[in-house]
Amino acid sequence: METQLGRIVNDIENISSITATPGNGCTRFSYSNEDLKAREYLMEKMRDIGLAIKVDAVGNIRAKLFDENNKDNSSIMIGSHIDTVLNGGKFDGLTGVVTALEVIRVIKENNIKCEKPIELVIFAEEEGSNFDVTLLGSKALTANYTVEDLKRISNDKGNSAYEVMKKFGLDIDNLPNETLKDEEIEAMIELHVEQGGVLDKEDIPVGIVEAIAGMKTLRVSVKGVSNHAGSTPMNLRLDPMVASAELITSIKDAAIMKSFPTTVATVGKINITPNRTNVIPKEVEFFVDIRDVKEEGIECIENELKKKSIDVIEKYGVAIHIEEIGMSDVVHLSRRVTRVIEESAIVKGIKYMKINSGAVHDSAMLSEVTDVGMIFVPSIGGYSHCPEELTKYEDIKLGCDLLLEAVINLSNRPISATNNK
Amino acid sequence: METQLGRIVNDIENISSITATPGNGCTRFSYSNEDLKAREYLMEKMRDIGLAIKVDAVGNIRAKLFDENNKDNSSIMIGSHIDTVLNGGKFDGLTGVVTALEVIRVIKENNIKCEKPIELVIFAEEEGSNFDVTLLGSKALTANYTVEDLKRISNDKGNSAYEVMKKFGLDIDNLPNETLKDEEIEAMIELHVEQGGVLDKEDIPVGIVEAIAGMKTLRVSVKGVSNHAGSTPMNLRLDPMVASAELITSIKDAAIMKSFPTTVATVGKINITPNRTNVIPKEVEFFVDIRDVKEEGIECIENELKKKSIDVIEKYGVAIHIEEIGMSDVVHLSRRVTRVIEESAIVKGIKYMKINSGAVHDSAMLSEVTDVGMIFVPSIGGYSHCPEELTKYEDIKLGCDLLLEAVINLSNRPISATNNK
Repeated sequence: METQLGRIVNDIENISSITATPGNGCTRFSYSNEDLKAREYLMEKMRDIGLAIKVDAVGNIRAKLFDENNKDNSSIMIGSHIDTVLNGGKFDGLTGVVTALEVIRVIKENNIKCEKPIELVIFAEEEGSNFDVTLLGSKALTANYTVEDLKRISNDKGNSAYEVMKKFGLDIDNLPNETLKDEEIEAMIELHVEQGGVLDKEDIPVGIVEAIAGMKTLRVSVKGVSNHAGSTPMNLRLDPMVASAELITSIKDAAIMKSFPTTVATVGKINITPNRTNVIPKEVEFFVDIRDVKEEGIECIENELKKKSIDVIEKYGVAIHIEEIGMSDVVHLSRRVTRVIEESAIVKGIKYMKINSGAVHDSAMLSEVTDVGMIFVPSIGGYSHCPEELTKYEDIKLGCDLLLEAVINLSNRPISATNNK
Repeated sequence: METQLGRIVNDIENISSITATPGNGCTRFSYSNEDLKAREYLMEKMRDIGLAIKVDAVGNIRAKLFDENNKDNSSIMIGSHIDTVLNGGKFDGLTGVVTALEVIRVIKENNIKCEKPIELVIFAEEEGSNFDVTLLGSKALTANYTVEDLKRISNDKGNSAYEVMKKFGLDIDNLPNETLKDEEIEAMIELHVEQGGVLDKEDIPVGIVEAIAGMKTLRVSVKGVSNHAGSTPMNLRLDPMVASAELITSIKDAAIMKSFPTTVATVGKINITPNRTNVIPKEVEFFVDIRDVKEEGIECIENELKKKSIDVIEKYGVAIHIEEIGMSDVVHLSRRVTRVIEESAIVKGIKYMKINSGAVHDSAMLSEVTDVGMIFVPSIGGYSHCPEELTKYEDIKLGCDLLLEAVINLSNRPISATNNK
């Protein structure tokens, strides 16, 4: 009893071909036309298996395999997300969804006995591509966002998450009734590509994740005075661009020199007003993405940025406002689930290593309400969030086999036998 | 015989109310709907005076006042532009057009004798708001751009200047027949707001311009490797954003510390690919606007940028490509025309000072083919290219009276009597 490589390849290739940027990576934002097509493809496959499908208030898809004997028990949840960043890769998120689908397909086809229902989940808006807020779907599912929050969060065009979801046909006001109930999920496993280069460098096909880096996203607004680029002498300028450049350099310096080897800080997005060649900008807004498996590393960068801002305000006469727009704690995954995955790898003879995740995942949110484990498969060269993102199908197949074994084990063993979170 | 303040106020208020960003300054790009409305307003006024109107291949409007006696003589050209930057001001460009219109209106109404035709010009696309190329209209008029050049230049959407102009209804292929002929224009005067704070600080209502700063615009492309912001350690990054921040800081430092007090350098526009919070960018493209009345000042900044780029390539492993996309030489205005303006100011009892222009103007292009002078009126607080841009109407009226007097003088005195360029 094995997963089928052909079906995995077929599903990943079919869905990854649904992109808003053909020839330039995968661009499949949640609530877009591409998202809609990918959802239809997957829900068709779920219906083929005979799963009970439900789309919740924010667009998370939940599809359950159960029978008369196990229908009242807590479920084992598996899955990931299908949205991407702009010009992202084929494997991020999608690999975890397609392998979870394959696992359930194999269980159903082979009539494998499961004492608990198996639930496939596809989280909406994991990447934050619409609203600059990551993990939106899993945050809503775990009651970390209210309907009011979703009215407040908006995209670059000024449309709120609430409006965008409503337009996508979702019954967003029903969110309070659709968050996870106590004991609804007994355990969760997410398979994902590593998005870093460790497994590839070590030539090991599977990583069993111990911790997920915490993350903080800051919005930094630097306001100066807009003026003509030709007729304003250097000493009369209040230029938010040069002030921002100095801040960006200091953020990088702090991440390299003042924190830990695990600390990373990135400025990937800048908005300039008015963004014209011959105009000194009025405002530069940039976003800082800080991550670490140690909370102190994140704090260090934030503190250094705040300290440097005081200097920069003094030096350039600009106004600086720093706002925290996203935050997730360091997450230590469930030792119980991790141990089951490890035992499964040993049984199946799959070579593995323990690893940390630098990237945040929906699993981090789920770990607030249930026991969570993660399986990583290698990213060649460590590339991710770009068209060059690549994972070998043979590694995905090994990860999928491991996921199948772990799910069957989790489903059929009493919690007491493994409970050691 | 005087210009009428009421008509000047009326024209400026009416035209400046035509903006794509009501409540947030003037946004009137050439070839836009707002441009079309402003053109219609002005051409209606020109028809009222009885001018012979011609719109040339790139959209420059030329309207001539002449009679049977002077029709074969070279013209005196006056005017400026009506396009703006994004969220620009009410007075930049428009002041020169409205005062030129008023001058011609007064000459016609009072049957003032002119031995030369007076031509009102409205240059298209001065600000470079569409294609990041300034002075496009005057460059085309002075044969500095060919039809082929206009096919090559494109906007952010990838549409060429040629396509945009054609869509606006212009007969762009006729450009070779419509450039200025030898001796077509005997002299040109442009009235403009200073866009700097010197006249306001000195409390002097009129500046007579001696030199226009030269300008160079560079496009700097910094290419790195896009990757996941969470799972890529700092030491494995090829991040074009931190590389660009270091270059922007060095440009500012060079302008302040390594060149002249007259040198200015600005980074006002940046494009980031893909511009997402949680993705290390693949490419950062930024534009450098360098200006000085001394050529050495411009060269200094460019050389410092190139030197620093070598360090940055070494340090961050990025690729850097620097391309010159715009260039205009330092322009020393005509001593003959400047002297006529000065004499006119003395005759009219208008307080003035000699001044340089930090901003580039269409006058700089015209000075290649004819004798050019410029009159500045004060910009309160030095603000320009922003909604706060402000010039007192009483100063505009004084500038307009001076322009009228200078035009009459230029028109009625033989070149030999004043020729001392």
